[in-house]
Amino acid sequence: MKAIDLLIHARWCLPMTGSTDIFEHYALAVHQGHIVALLPQDQADQQFTATQVHRLDDHVLMPGLINNHGHSAMTLFRGLADDLPLMQWLHEHIWPAEQRFVGDAFVEAGSALAVAEMLRGGTTTFSDMYFFPEATARVVDRTGIRASLGMVVIQFPTNWASDVNEYLHKGQALHDKYRHHPRITTNYAPHAPYTVDDATLAQIMVNAEELDVPIQMHIHETVSEIQTSIDNYGKRPLARLKELGLLSPRLIATHMTQLLPEEIADCARAGVHIAHCPESNMKLASGFSPIDAMHQAGLNITIGTDGAASNNDLDMFAEMRQTALLAKAVSGNPSAVPAYSALEMATINGAKALGIAETTGSLAVGKAADMIAVELTDIESVPMYDLASQLVYATGRDKVTDAWVAGKHVLKQKQLTTLDASKILSDAQQWAKTIKASS
Amino acid sequence: MKAIDLLIHARWCLPMTGSTDIFEHYALAVHQGHIVALLPQDQADQQFTATQVHRLDDHVLMPGLINNHGHSAMTLFRGLADDLPLMQWLHEHIWPAEQRFVGDAFVEAGSALAVAEMLRGGTTTFSDMYFFPEATARVVDRTGIRASLGMVVIQFPTNWASDVNEYLHKGQALHDKYRHHPRITTNYAPHAPYTVDDATLAQIMVNAEELDVPIQMHIHETVSEIQTSIDNYGKRPLARLKELGLLSPRLIATHMTQLLPEEIADCARAGVHIAHCPESNMKLASGFSPIDAMHQAGLNITIGTDGAASNNDLDMFAEMRQTALLAKAVSGNPSAVPAYSALEMATINGAKALGIAETTGSLAVGKAADMIAVELTDIESVPMYDLASQLVYATGRDKVTDAWVAGKHVLKQKQLTTLDASKILSDAQQWAKTIKASS
Repeated sequence: MKAIDLLIHARWCLPMTGSTDIFEHYALAVHQGHIVALLPQDQADQQFTATQVHRLDDHVLMPGLINNHGHSAMTLFRGLADDLPLMQWLHEHIWPAEQRFVGDAFVEAGSALAVAEMLRGGTTTFSDMYFFPEATARVVDRTGIRASLGMVVIQFPTNWASDVNEYLHKGQALHDKYRHHPRITTNYAPHAPYTVDDATLAQIMVNAEELDVPIQMHIHETVSEIQTSIDNYGKRPLARLKELGLLSPRLIATHMTQLLPEEIADCARAGVHIAHCPESNMKLASGFSPIDAMHQAGLNITIGTDGAASNNDLDMFAEMRQTALLAKAVSGNPSAVPAYSALEMATINGAKALGIAETTGSLAVGKAADMIAVELTDIESVPMYDLASQLVYATGRDKVTDAWVAGKHVLKQKQLTTLDASKILSDAQQWAKTIKASS
Repeated sequence: MKAIDLLIHARWCLPMTGSTDIFEHYALAVHQGHIVALLPQDQADQQFTATQVHRLDDHVLMPGLINNHGHSAMTLFRGLADDLPLMQWLHEHIWPAEQRFVGDAFVEAGSALAVAEMLRGGTTTFSDMYFFPEATARVVDRTGIRASLGMVVIQFPTNWASDVNEYLHKGQALHDKYRHHPRITTNYAPHAPYTVDDATLAQIMVNAEELDVPIQMHIHETVSEIQTSIDNYGKRPLARLKELGLLSPRLIATHMTQLLPEEIADCARAGVHIAHCPESNMKLASGFSPIDAMHQAGLNITIGTDGAASNNDLDMFAEMRQTALLAKAVSGNPSAVPAYSALEMATINGAKALGIAETTGSLAVGKAADMIAVELTDIESVPMYDLASQLVYATGRDKVTDAWVAGKHVLKQKQLTTLDASKILSDAQQWAKTIKASS
């Protein structure tokens, strides 16, 4: 008998290691934060003696979801200004609010609220793009979630930095501080082609190579972005990025709603990853991302919630369902993005894009023990004919009962173990009062 | 002091009587199943002494949602066959399963599961279209939910009836049995233009006038339906229905994804109601319903889940959000179907279509006390800038804690009071075992 930290018996286990890998009455063995075995329950009981044992007789055990694009602190702007045209939303509401309120304390409170919401909803890893990432990093460090934090660069001054050099410098400092952290990685986050110039993008490419980190950018989010680029550069944004050499396996292209067939082919050839944010694209009427076409072309599709100001939640179960539904509706093909593919997009594909697939994204021996338990035997979940289908088309995030990151039990029977929910709620209400008073 | 049955104090109250009617710290007074007052809490305490008093300090009290199109017993086929082309789905899976299993016992078990799911998710009224409606009626009668049950007519034999005369006869019997029931009404439910001939439709119109009931029909669901009609009748289905005189305030046109501008104008002029089923249309890749255009044209839009075989849940909060998001994405207008309009579509508009707006759909004095409590102070629901927005864009059905129909407390702190959940679960699992064994 081998002594281990944790043994979890589950009714179902969906390790996301291949569509035929759906196991019943299996157990996952965890030691020192890593998965050491996934095997039938009776064998597990013969091989391991564990400090902690959990029995999940009504649950599926699966990898934690990976939210591959968001602006976590913007949870404090949840529902601040809805149902408005994009430019009015940005110019009259979001940007003034950001200018007035965004700082270290705002980002810390907003990130804590976001992490609480994400863990409760089954997300164990998130990629972020926001100012004051050092505040988000502190929240990630102390709450036990996993994150890839954006080193934001934008060509105009904000409360965080006054010019490109300061953005780059602060990003580098973030990277240096957390380079050996077990759960925090970084990525370059130039905001968008229309807010970052060629020289800065060239510099970011050099830096990203040196630090070996991904680059995430909002790309082809709206029709007007394309037109602005044609007016200013004589070409579409992707054509410009291609000439600059940015299309590569390092790039995570976010949104991507306006695409020509040759742009999809270019991205596929270059190994670009896609961060699809279906609900945000719908709510802002940005357009439909041709996910089925990109999926068929072999692109690695991942899923993100975007910020709560344009969503208005951080619900990866909803985004997963939306991805599967919208792909069918847009392509006219009811077989587009079947349930298991949507699950891959929300788990292992995200890990690949963030360069952390050796660590997370599936339940495989040697990886970190990042997983969730989802209850599947109540009224909303019966009958059960197909596990993947049930998870994507009929399961809400409220069915998530437990989450572990690197073996740590961060959500226990729906209770957060590393966050003070009452403080998060009172901080959020205090911020809302301040923001409301000024608007 | 007036003695009443029930007084509910709520942090927020959204009666759906107009977009500016959003009340804080109000109370709803109920007596003998009807609403007798909605007023500030201190006034309520002075005027009423109630047998039961509830305090909902973290909740909004609002009308129960109205699911205006579904096939409730099909919950037993939830996830039976997903991600398949429509014809393969129908011919190889759904129709054979229906032929084999659908009968009184199946419909009773499936309807009970559906009613349980709907009440837990905040739906207090549903419109149904399925075989053996007498079994569904028994479930509605004993569980306390409100329903408009379809008198189904289809031009081919099923387990329920062998020809049009038998369908009409059984429908009439259903209507006669429940004509004085306080919560059950009926509607004519000719399946679709391609499955019901002109003579039968003419007969149904006569009957519907006589019984004064609505007519619901799947109309313009798919492109192939239009083509089939052109091939068989030399005209599009709506043109044929118009000639037959079916376009009227009695008609609830379901799906309506393929529409010409003049068809929208015709329907608006005639006062036709729309039952929009966004998730079903997306999942089956049926097409996009031009909801914003129809809304602008003044049509009364209502929302339905469709059956669980093509959704795969009966979640009206999800459909409401989907309606608001999809209308924006399809029209390219981020102001299309704002949150409050989506709430109207899911409440009062449904009541209007079903001819029961005098009874339900809003919290107004004299109406039946059909309402739900939705908890809005936890992590996922803060901060709160706009109540309607929060309900539509950031609230899951799991936030529903209580439901009343005609003053009866049918969901009490998330527990069903009129249904035996364990029996429903075991019946569903038993049916699933039988169905799986045969497929």
